[in-house]
Amino acid sequence: MYDKLIRNIKVGVIGSGYWGPKLARNFHAIPGAELYIVSDLRQDRLDHIAGLYPGVKVTRDYGELLDSDVEAVAIATPVSTHYKMARAALEHGKHILVEKPLTNDSQQAQELIDLARENGRVLMVGHTFEYNPAVGFLRDFIASGKLGQVYYINATRVNLGIFQQDINVVWDLAPHDISILLYVLGVEPVSVSARGSAYVQPGIHDVAYLTLSFPDGVMADVRVSWLDPCKIRRITVVGSLKMIVYDDVEPVEKIKIYDKGVDMPPYSDTLEEFHLSYRHGDITTPAISSAEPLNLECTHFLECIRYGKKPRSNGVVGLRVVRILEHAQRSLLNGGEGEGISW
Amino acid sequence: MYDKLIRNIKVGVIGSGYWGPKLARNFHAIPGAELYIVSDLRQDRLDHIAGLYPGVKVTRDYGELLDSDVEAVAIATPVSTHYKMARAALEHGKHILVEKPLTNDSQQAQELIDLARENGRVLMVGHTFEYNPAVGFLRDFIASGKLGQVYYINATRVNLGIFQQDINVVWDLAPHDISILLYVLGVEPVSVSARGSAYVQPGIHDVAYLTLSFPDGVMADVRVSWLDPCKIRRITVVGSLKMIVYDDVEPVEKIKIYDKGVDMPPYSDTLEEFHLSYRHGDITTPAISSAEPLNLECTHFLECIRYGKKPRSNGVVGLRVVRILEHAQRSLLNGGEGEGISW
Amino acid sequence: MYDKLIRNIKVGVIGSGYWGPKLARNFHAIPGAELYIVSDLRQDRLDHIAGLYPGVKVTRDYGELLDSDVEAVAIATPVSTHYKMARAALEHGKHILVEKPLTNDSQQAQELIDLARENGRVLMVGHTFEYNPAVGFLRDFIASGKLGQVYYINATRVNLGIFQQDINVVWDLAPHDISILLYVLGVEPVSVSARGSAYVQPGIHDVAYLTLSFPDGVMADVRVSWLDPCKIRRITVVGSLKMIVYDDVEPVEKIKIYDKGVDMPPYSDTLEEFHLSYRHGDITTPAISSAEPLNLECTHFLECIRYGKKPRSNGVVGLRVVRILEHAQRSLLNGGEGEGISW
Amino acid sequence: MYDKLIRNIKVGVIGSGYWGPKLARNFHAIPGAELYIVSDLRQDRLDHIAGLYPGVKVTRDYGELLDSDVEAVAIATPVSTHYKMARAALEHGKHILVEKPLTNDSQQAQELIDLARENGRVLMVGHTFEYNPAVGFLRDFIASGKLGQVYYINATRVNLGIFQQDINVVWDLAPHDISILLYVLGVEPVSVSARGSAYVQPGIHDVAYLTLSFPDGVMADVRVSWLDPCKIRRITVVGSLKMIVYDDVEPVEKIKIYDKGVDMPPYSDTLEEFHLSYRHGDITTPAISSAEPLNLECTHFLECIRYGKKPRSNGVVGLRVVRILEHAQRSLLNGGEGEGISW
Repeated sequence: MYDKLIRNIKVGVIGSGYWGPKLARNFHAIPGAELYIVSDLRQDRLDHIAGLYPGVKVTRDYGELLDSDVEAVAIATPVSTHYKMARAALEHGKHILVEKPLTNDSQQAQELIDLARENGRVLMVGHTFEYNPAVGFLRDFIASGKLGQVYYINATRVNLGIFQQDINVVWDLAPHDISILLYVLGVEPVSVSARGSAYVQPGIHDVAYLTLSFPDGVMADVRVSWLDPCKIRRITVVGSLKMIVYDDVEPVEKIKIYDKGVDMPPYSDTLEEFHLSYRHGDITTPAISSAEPLNLECTHFLECIRYGKKPRSNGVVGLRVVRILEHAQRSLLNGGEGEGISW
Repeated sequence: MYDKLIRNIKVGVIGSGYWGPKLARNFHAIPGAELYIVSDLRQDRLDHIAGLYPGVKVTRDYGELLDSDVEAVAIATPVSTHYKMARAALEHGKHILVEKPLTNDSQQAQELIDLARENGRVLMVGHTFEYNPAVGFLRDFIASGKLGQVYYINATRVNLGIFQQDINVVWDLAPHDISILLYVLGVEPVSVSARGSAYVQPGIHDVAYLTLSFPDGVMADVRVSWLDPCKIRRITVVGSLKMIVYDDVEPVEKIKIYDKGVDMPPYSDTLEEFHLSYRHGDITTPAISSAEPLNLECTHFLECIRYGKKPRSNGVVGLRVVRILEHAQRSLLNGGEGEGISW
Repeated sequence: MYDKLIRNIKVGVIGSGYWGPKLARNFHAIPGAELYIVSDLRQDRLDHIAGLYPGVKVTRDYGELLDSDVEAVAIATPVSTHYKMARAALEHGKHILVEKPLTNDSQQAQELIDLARENGRVLMVGHTFEYNPAVGFLRDFIASGKLGQVYYINATRVNLGIFQQDINVVWDLAPHDISILLYVLGVEPVSVSARGSAYVQPGIHDVAYLTLSFPDGVMADVRVSWLDPCKIRRITVVGSLKMIVYDDVEPVEKIKIYDKGVDMPPYSDTLEEFHLSYRHGDITTPAISSAEPLNLECTHFLECIRYGKKPRSNGVVGLRVVRILEHAQRSLLNGGEGEGISW
Repeated sequence: MYDKLIRNIKVGVIGSGYWGPKLARNFHAIPGAELYIVSDLRQDRLDHIAGLYPGVKVTRDYGELLDSDVEAVAIATPVSTHYKMARAALEHGKHILVEKPLTNDSQQAQELIDLARENGRVLMVGHTFEYNPAVGFLRDFIASGKLGQVYYINATRVNLGIFQQDINVVWDLAPHDISILLYVLGVEPVSVSARGSAYVQPGIHDVAYLTLSFPDGVMADVRVSWLDPCKIRRITVVGSLKMIVYDDVEPVEKIKIYDKGVDMPPYSDTLEEFHLSYRHGDITTPAISSAEPLNLECTHFLECIRYGKKPRSNGVVGLRVVRILEHAQRSLLNGGEGEGISW
């Protein structure tokens, strides 16, 4: 299965908090990659990594990582540092995988895109869900026309924690849903609004509701919260022919396709005769690959480097998400007023 | 248990579509009430009722019902007819139970309140959930202080159907959640906004999102839809000490109390030291009476008549709900702009 | 839909405890039947019935019921009285629907069959699940060959209560599963064994496990209990091509068809090469009619009377269930020793 | 947290099929242990391990492992080889952790116990569930008396696969449940019986039902299957005061304590007065540590070595399980006849 002849790609991981170790684990395990060095400001995190992967270098100075001969760098640091880290890595000639959101500023995201293009380096954003087989199924199902016309999408992504201190819940959790929406609909929203509240940490919204308007009247509503007793990861897509629920918390039945709908009568002479009819047909749970999305993402990153391919979740996609987040943030601070977005 | 000495109250039910037969069944079964007459415009509905309750009179003319010697009238007709029906019933000296929402116009709701007061008749609104034992538990739990400070409430009430033709989904489903919110919080909202779409019937919103702001920063978000593959009836109440989920679709575990929360550290000298701590304690499902809420509601109506009591869901409560709906409707047509409400 | 020309069948119901009122409700509601009279030993039960159905006669003397001109009698009394009641009803020329199990003695069941045949009367047993659309789906699916060869069936029917005092849990709950097994497999078991315990009432088993061996190596295991914290009504049917779970407690997804299985390799030279392969395909939830099984059962009973048809759950089927129960009872008292059954 | 002064224990893992890599991962990660060498007959498995842990030696010759200076050996090979491997390891002076079941022969299990005792080495069996915090909760709850008298236990452990070729489903899956039963009840069964079938591989039972009788009339029924569409890991413990369900598949609510029961009336003069009363109280889900049981098990093994402690799941416990399995196997081949067990 694994071609011994492909060259090994040496990888460094900057940041070893919540997500960095997952990247490290995958780059360590994927054939054709070598986890070479990990950097973090905290020594205890580095000790943890060193314990797991005795051959891997660790350093508190990410400059040392950049100066090493790693070909690729994965950046899993706080969002506010993404731009600086990514810029430095590109300037050192590295291919980069930056955690979502790409940056906290669209201008900076554009600069990274430009820099990567000039240097001929891969710039990929860690929109993990674009590599999730269930999301791929959703996209294919919609594209096939089997869902009919998409009416609306409702998404919920809530649980207790993990509260961030440099970004609010919109910047933390909504990038997942926004990247999923862009990916499965294949089109950008024309406007966005957001409302929310900050209950635990003053000034940092921990509960928020986003509304994205897409062309053709498609509405998408997203609920994100760090302050909910239950872990919910659920997306409902309602179309004119079928309805789908994607529940990422379900161990097996992640996708359910409902053959449900409402049919208008062809005509009716009197109001009394007028009756909508409801269709309650079969429910189908397709078999979905249980491959780990992050593994698929890391493998894709390595392939883009190896074969000069453009990543699915490339910089331009990452920029789109940042721009939507910026508009949502403005709406959030503005009492939920809708923000038109020009593309 | 049932006191043979209490006098029987003769009841008429106007409307025998979806809800009327449930009222009929209860008034037929509750000791101390006599289901005397049912009216509806459709003969097949009346035949159905006559088949179930051979002794009960049926008529296509509700005037006949009002002219009978029934003491109490339950009105379960389309919302647009509530005012006319209720007014006529009060003018005939009847006590009335009007399905929710009380009217589609707050001015008319006020007139009914005034008329009932002048005539010394009971005016009750069919806010069934105020009689639901699980909702009563929620109210008591919040009032006891065990939940701590209420942060926010999220409510979802969706399924496929039943599409209405004289009102949209906000007027159809949201009265349940609004009456629950008013009841469990014991306070009126200061503003409301609503957004939504009409996918199946042009001009009649079938999907909507409401946001109600209550005093002290309490937010309540309500999602209602006639166009969802799953039946969801779920309310999450998040407080500073506990969190509760009320899932009305669950056959047994309707209420779950989560001993979960986030605690701020008392102080911290450096940012590095700063850590929120998460509490993940026990989950408790209290035993909740399985009494049918509508039975409790009808019994309460009869008691109010018999003993001259003011109903829990009286006209003033019904008016509050109508006023909130009116503001929500205006917001809905106005792109979701927030509407302040003065009480 | 309802043919006004069919003649009305007058029905009497003997017994108004747990099940009788459900029979009464259905015979009251089904067009073409008239609930004429209900008998019970307890006056409070009769008062309840009289309150619900003012036109219906009630009596504490079932002889009065038999002497009336009802054409059909439904018997929902304790099992130990079934034979006496059924015999008397047949001798009065009535068609009878007897609750399950038909009798507590196979000889008596045979006598009832003979008597009904001699008198040309319908003898039907209240095996409700044979009229359950989900069970019908199971039977059809197996018969179609889509499940492949049936390997085994596992059934669980447990909850807290209702403890009986004249029969144990095997006679109370297992008739449901036995009648389902006979119906969906279309064949009789060759042997049965049963084990169990009596925890609450000395001498009356409240927990039991039955094993039925069917031809071709098909095994069916049945767990019944009055003493379980959860209500479980679940049947798993495992075949060589597909597997099905029928969960009667599920409000919507009662049947799930799993495209799962194990395939033997066609051949393998060495043990190392030998690998079973597992198939994890789609899961399908077919749309199943939500018609009330008891309504379908009562309707079937009336049709059998009206058109001289032989009931699906006729006396012979009822006798089969009683015979299996007798063998199970003997095994239960005999430490679980298997009992061969000759048909 | 981790005391740098404790000496490191070098560990070897024999067998790298399904379970071995999990042991390797834990011994690699636990402070105070060093995963030093892994052996397996298959080179591809060794390549996998070498890829994950570059510093770890791998070998196809387990003799090389035994000849190394590892202090402890974990054995995760097919059951039929346990005795030979364990004996050789003890003879080389190693402390050993043997996967469950300890052996396929009680005489051999006794020999290993004796040998370990003579050599002063730790012999521990991999009964993972004895280290599962939920099982610990069960044991403590029963021991506290809060459950009241234990009536019975019902256990289900089924899913599709993994079919074994050297042992049947009883030897493969039932050791988990048997070790749980011994641990939570703290007493040995007086008899066991087993029935089952072999559907996929002739002669190797893939579906089985075990019944264990414990003192004081406590019954435990265990259902195991490799041939079920659903993964079920569920144990119900019914007591006179409370009932508990332990569902290991549930991500959060693993344990539910039901305040349910049946109460006999203190006395009753007539049968008519006799009524059992049912208690339907609160349901409580205690917070259970989410620590990985295998990590706790491996840590316990290391502590036993380091401090000369006797393991919780020591050889005598492992022998008990093997003896029960031997009796179950005899019953299985003997048509389910009960086997008394003398301790």
